[in-house]
Amino acid sequence: MHYIQNLLKGNKIAIARTITAVENGTDSKILEEIFPYTGKAYHIGITGPPGAGKSTLVNVIAKKLLKENKKIGIIAVDPTSPFSGGALLGDRIRMTDLALNENVFIRSMASRGSLGGLAQKTKDAALVLDASGMDYILIETIGVGQVELDIAQVCDTTVVVLVPESGDSVQAMKAGLLEVADILVVNKGDRKGSDSLIMELKFAFELREQKLGWHYPILKTTAIENIGIEELVSTIKSHKEYLEKSHKLDEERKTKLTLRIHELIEENIKSHLKEYVINKDELEFLIDKIYQRKNNPYNIANEITKKVLEGRGG
Amino acid sequence: MHYIQNLLKGNKIAIARTITAVENGTDSKILEEIFPYTGKAYHIGITGPPGAGKSTLVNVIAKKLLKENKKIGIIAVDPTSPFSGGALLGDRIRMTDLALNENVFIRSMASRGSLGGLAQKTKDAALVLDASGMDYILIETIGVGQVELDIAQVCDTTVVVLVPESGDSVQAMKAGLLEVADILVVNKGDRKGSDSLIMELKFAFELREQKLGWHYPILKTTAIENIGIEELVSTIKSHKEYLEKSHKLDEERKTKLTLRIHELIEENIKSHLKEYVINKDELEFLIDKIYQRKNNPYNIANEITKKVLEGRGG
Repeated sequence: MHYIQNLLKGNKIAIARTITAVENGTDSKILEEIFPYTGKAYHIGITGPPGAGKSTLVNVIAKKLLKENKKIGIIAVDPTSPFSGGALLGDRIRMTDLALNENVFIRSMASRGSLGGLAQKTKDAALVLDASGMDYILIETIGVGQVELDIAQVCDTTVVVLVPESGDSVQAMKAGLLEVADILVVNKGDRKGSDSLIMELKFAFELREQKLGWHYPILKTTAIENIGIEELVSTIKSHKEYLEKSHKLDEERKTKLTLRIHELIEENIKSHLKEYVINKDELEFLIDKIYQRKNNPYNIANEITKKVLEGRGG
Repeated sequence: MHYIQNLLKGNKIAIARTITAVENGTDSKILEEIFPYTGKAYHIGITGPPGAGKSTLVNVIAKKLLKENKKIGIIAVDPTSPFSGGALLGDRIRMTDLALNENVFIRSMASRGSLGGLAQKTKDAALVLDASGMDYILIETIGVGQVELDIAQVCDTTVVVLVPESGDSVQAMKAGLLEVADILVVNKGDRKGSDSLIMELKFAFELREQKLGWHYPILKTTAIENIGIEELVSTIKSHKEYLEKSHKLDEERKTKLTLRIHELIEENIKSHLKEYVINKDELEFLIDKIYQRKNNPYNIANEITKKVLEGRGG
């Protein structure tokens, strides 16, 4: 693993290789090795429905932070993102100058077909970027579904982006999205309906339990014209400061580590189950019994669980 | 549990109560009790992006099947569905006559905030409807994310609905969606672009591994005007016949039961972990060590897993 040293120095090829190795699971020790060097990067999640302009927003936020001499890692999980190659040619070209900057590393996570494990892969990729010395990691996700909410968990600040015209599908998504939002952005703020959307969101936020000391700002941007970005970046920084001063950053990161430990144990036990405990022939026999309604899945599952926990498995 | 007898007779109040009891987990034995009476209903999944007209399609399919004297259960998981109360008033009124029919039971699953467990709740609700004597269970889900793909797993036939104007967000979603589709429907087929969408889908389907004996039909409907529904329903029935004759229905349902057993064992072990194995104070101490980068989550998770599997937990 000669490339670990290069990774820690921020070498782009080493970063790319390490993420690939982690994704493919070809080297199970990498994450353990790099873990001591993590915990320094600040994670910002940018989430919202397709067409909300998330990647344009990521683009302009990154450019703003680059001017402050920061190193930026970008992970695009949204399959419609220009970063991940899902959008129009024009968008993709616009992104290229960012990718060429020596202080930026962009990675898109393939969600094609394998949604399971995507949240995990994203968290691992973020860990690699963290170890590589990034100051900020921007994670762009489409704001629908469990996977995306899982990814939001890894972020210190989550920015939820909405647009006026997203209409009632957004209405619905807001439910889950509002709960993960630290900052709300109404993008394409020059369009009709943006002010009434802001009003709506204010009402929705009033119903939400307030965190002491944080007032859930709702900002208006027009990312494509770089309008409102200065305020957005400074609001993200205010949130960072708020978390640091109130010691919530430590607290929340520890809570996330606890969740991570639980996930890892569950994964361990899952693979143990698959490899050792469940005898394939025996299970097939039991499934036949269940299929004939002579037994039921709950009963069988309880019996197998007992076996595992009595240490007879393996 | 006096209402179980009523449930088996198809009493609507009993169905509603049983689903609620299952959702709330207030009676853990219900699923075991009703399981022997399940396995008869045919499960049809209707999935696709918001605005594809899924619930209109469910509506007209249900009406068609009602004419054949079938009993229909409908589960709406899509938060934008009129069935689940997310859409316009006009839509909701249109649905009401269906809900009043004595051979129809409609249930919408709340996804608000609690996406985790939603797939599970939906599968359990489907089991209740199955036990209540439904001939068909129609499950409407928004076609994004892991939860929806999980729900698709419970269905015998999965119909994926797309519309011409969904554009490139659909492009992206197609990847995951095409893999679960048995039948593709281009709805709002009177609109511009529907024929070119069909062409695109044909190309995409050609790249897919073909199942022997099933050719993945791509149909055009205009659900709101009841156009193309006859053909869709008869195609669903062809798929049913194909599955039955080739014994794939048995096979696939057994595979699903096997997955279910694995899920149940994982759930059992999860709750065991939470209740017994992980000592809270000890874990807090370990998390502090990890947070200080003096240890790492992978190592700690492996140690705890070992404890569990050596039977020292509990």
